[in-house]
Amino acid sequence: METFFSFLERRVDDSSSLLCVGLDPHVSDLSAPNAAAALDFCLKLVRQTARYAAAFKPNAAFFEQFGAEGWDALKQVIAAVQDESNRQGSLIPVILDAKRGDIASTAEAYAASAFQTLGAHAITLSPYLGKDSIDPFIRDHEKGVFLLCKTSNPGAGDLQDLMVTEDGGPKTEERDVLRPSSSVPLFIHVAGLAQSWNTANNIGLVVGATQLEALARVRAAAPELWFLAPGVGVQGGDLEAALHAGLRKDGMGMLIPVSRGISRADNPALAAAALRDQIVEIRAQKNHQGA
Amino acid sequence: METFFSFLERRVDDSSSLLCVGLDPHVSDLSAPNAAAALDFCLKLVRQTARYAAAFKPNAAFFEQFGAEGWDALKQVIAAVQDESNRQGSLIPVILDAKRGDIASTAEAYAASAFQTLGAHAITLSPYLGKDSIDPFIRDHEKGVFLLCKTSNPGAGDLQDLMVTEDGGPKTEERDVLRPSSSVPLFIHVAGLAQSWNTANNIGLVVGATQLEALARVRAAAPELWFLAPGVGVQGGDLEAALHAGLRKDGMGMLIPVSRGISRADNPALAAAALRDQIVEIRAQKNHQGA
Repeated sequence: METFFSFLERRVDDSSSLLCVGLDPHVSDLSAPNAAAALDFCLKLVRQTARYAAAFKPNAAFFEQFGAEGWDALKQVIAAVQDESNRQGSLIPVILDAKRGDIASTAEAYAASAFQTLGAHAITLSPYLGKDSIDPFIRDHEKGVFLLCKTSNPGAGDLQDLMVTEDGGPKTEERDVLRPSSSVPLFIHVAGLAQSWNTANNIGLVVGATQLEALARVRAAAPELWFLAPGVGVQGGDLEAALHAGLRKDGMGMLIPVSRGISRADNPALAAAALRDQIVEIRAQKNHQGA
Repeated sequence: METFFSFLERRVDDSSSLLCVGLDPHVSDLSAPNAAAALDFCLKLVRQTARYAAAFKPNAAFFEQFGAEGWDALKQVIAAVQDESNRQGSLIPVILDAKRGDIASTAEAYAASAFQTLGAHAITLSPYLGKDSIDPFIRDHEKGVFLLCKTSNPGAGDLQDLMVTEDGGPKTEERDVLRPSSSVPLFIHVAGLAQSWNTANNIGLVVGATQLEALARVRAAAPELWFLAPGVGVQGGDLEAALHAGLRKDGMGMLIPVSRGISRADNPALAAAALRDQIVEIRAQKNHQGA
């Protein structure tokens, strides 16, 4: 049966790429501060980089700031990726970077918005509200989610690095006693939850590529999941080290989103091709070492 | 200096209300499954209930599912609340229920979308990415946020009820030893963070009204914060018990969002008036008891 990640893995094979091209129309990068310029910016980028892209990732915020026109541009950008897919005869998944998170009928409406109205294939979500906030997005196995797990911003530690007890003990009363406990950081707990929830092969994780130790720990906690791993390029992450820390044993399992590193290059097509080729080389080395 | 909550408290005084009228255009409640019907539904509700509303809370998801037209309807709904504010000579704050959560320039773009493009006064956010993901939304003190803290859905316990250690010990290695620790549920830790971050009187919390013990614990952990406390009415929460558990000592500090309990009533104006009057009575009793 097809699932979101079976589609993605076919595309990874077709493109020999793990590159996820970010479509982030920052106002400062546009010819004018409006939705038409955002659309133009993204359509060019899609055309220039589609050959080298395992996936595209439009960032909802940069479209929303232009109101209804921005929303319309977002829909057109996703349609343009579909056109490129048709041209290549290979489905290029679109991951809507929206970081939504709500429950019940509200979550259903967000899922309808992302998958039906906009035509995206996957969406990024916050895990804070738990499993039933994820369910409406994974019911259709051909659609997928990436749950926020470990990010690399300064405040990530406010919640994600907190040590949580996983012993199933009483959780309603405060404790201030000596007691045996097995503790892991919250982000590792989230990784374990996602691994256990992924019964239909359509749940992945967002894990920053810049903190290699954390990345390796998440890989150990969720050996089968796909990661969306931002931070390579402008944010300073090292591509080779990140792939070594985060790839699955089968050389899959990591999408490398790059936005400004491509869009601000003199030649975005060349920049995307170069990144794709680097990824090919690193995966080949890793396969060779593993063999 | 004016802040989001000084505006809200003035409106609470003007309206004698803690009622936050939810604007949730569920498809099943509309005359047709489109943005025009959603707009019509909300504009009627705003007109009928504005006298009794301390605030309005449009739910972004139900507009987003209609794409660009839905986004345009959302903007018109917020403008209609502004018109009612002008008519009454009393600003009725609009809380955009969007549960966003992202970092850096993306968070800036979401803040611009909510506050500039749409004209909302506050927004609901997820705390999972930490303080710097909140900052762009609170920089303008006249704008506010409500951080997700404790929700009442089945999966809330997956993260929110986990016991976390607050001792500042090492957080990078797994532990499996006997050790002293002071533990609280994650939602209490979030409440404490929000209380400590609220230096400009513009951070509140989302706390379900149906779990009274949790509500009282959050109040103890965040004695000064405003709560947005869903669950009264359709979801079965008891208004009186919730207000007793969650109100601040000054009789403020809790907004009671009600959506279908008003919109599906035979007469939404009467339903809103009745809820407002109940709130007035409970607050008066509580003040009397406290005096």
